[in-house]
Amino acid sequence: MSNVYIDGPPVDVEVKRMLAKDVTDVVARAYKLPPAAIIVVIRENPAENVAHGGCLLCDARAEMLD
Amino acid sequence: MSNVYIDGPPVDVEVKRMLAKDVTDVVARAYKLPPAAIIVVIRENPAENVAHGGCLLCDARAEMLD
Amino acid sequence: MSNVYIDGPPVDVEVKRMLAKDVTDVVARAYKLPPAAIIVVIRENPAENVAHGGCLLCDARAEMLD
Amino acid sequence: MSNVYIDGPPVDVEVKRMLAKDVTDVVARAYKLPPAAIIVVIRENPAENVAHGGCLLCDARAEMLD
Amino acid sequence: MSNVYIDGPPVDVEVKRMLAKDVTDVVARAYKLPPAAIIVVIRENPAENVAHGGCLLCDARAEMLD
Amino acid sequence: MSNVYIDGPPVDVEVKRMLAKDVTDVVARAYKLPPAAIIVVIRENPAENVAHGGCLLCDARAEMLD
Repeated sequence: MSNVYIDGPPVDVEVKRMLAKDVTDVVARAYKLPPAAIIVVIRENPAENVAHGGCLLCDARAEMLD
Repeated sequence: MSNVYIDGPPVDVEVKRMLAKDVTDVVARAYKLPPAAIIVVIRENPAENVAHGGCLLCDARAEMLD
Repeated sequence: MSNVYIDGPPVDVEVKRMLAKDVTDVVARAYKLPPAAIIVVIRENPAENVAHGGCLLCDARAEMLD
Repeated sequence: MSNVYIDGPPVDVEVKRMLAKDVTDVVARAYKLPPAAIIVVIRENPAENVAHGGCLLCDARAEMLD
Repeated sequence: MSNVYIDGPPVDVEVKRMLAKDVTDVVARAYKLPPAAIIVVIRENPAENVAHGGCLLCDARAEMLD
Repeated sequence: MSNVYIDGPPVDVEVKRMLAKDVTDVVARAYKLPPAAIIVVIRENPAENVAHGGCLLCDARAEMLD
């Protein structure tokens, strides 16, 4: 069994479809497991809920636009 | 202390109430801890954010209806 | 699908067996899912890696013995 | 590298800004890492998705108001 | 930013190297992010800490050998 | 209630004590919660289980020493 959790920005369902397929492929190959043993959970975090270097992503973007 | 995280589909508050009570009961009994030492967090994931075998649950359901 | 993560103290395999079976039963019943759709992951945390109220559990225990 | 996940109630962006800055500061100091090596993810859980002692927080609050 | 957590069985460092590189590649491509924005954390769970269908993986393997 | 999970490198108990106390202080202040409502879990990841930019931390360190 392998569970994969991906934290990233909100995205369209096509991006999720690509993530689900491609991540499952590489994880199945690395662990030599069948794809049916892999679960992928995508967690979409708004930019005001994630910080890098102590600065929320929403604030970092606003600064870049100044 | 024990923290329990449950990833599942979106559900009604009655289901959450049952999950909270029953999971706390069995975890408290297994660890021999008082219920007050158990925290349960329910995470509701939409079907387009979870994949099994490389296929998003929302796509798997659509295929079953074809 | 439902993934359940249980953070708790290190325990014997019998306790894990009980947790696995009983948690799967109650989660399957609440979500109306077959047990095969439930994965349980037990994470054993040493007492020096968990804090309650700002105090590591290993220190809290040492104080209680004083 | 250090990733920090904070589960808490829904809050305003000012609270998130404070959490991001202050948590990054103390984690960077404790690990002797530059702030740029610290990622903070805030997860906002509604009161009906968290239970303490087997009781959902939304039900505990309703009882206190009775 | 994207953080990826992979729960799987204990593996050699070559498998981890492959997981790190390939998962980063597909996640960077899907989100259109530079690889430097991707962190991968591999969590190795012993077979007695994971259950599928209510049965610990270590017990399922023992049964298959009977 | 607030649960905080800190992923970082393996460290001494003094560092964990500092993390537990200081993180609890800033989280309690930000959420206006009593410290007793805060749980901190420290997860120590070996350098071969974490990758940044597709490269395991253990390999990045070896390259820097070349």
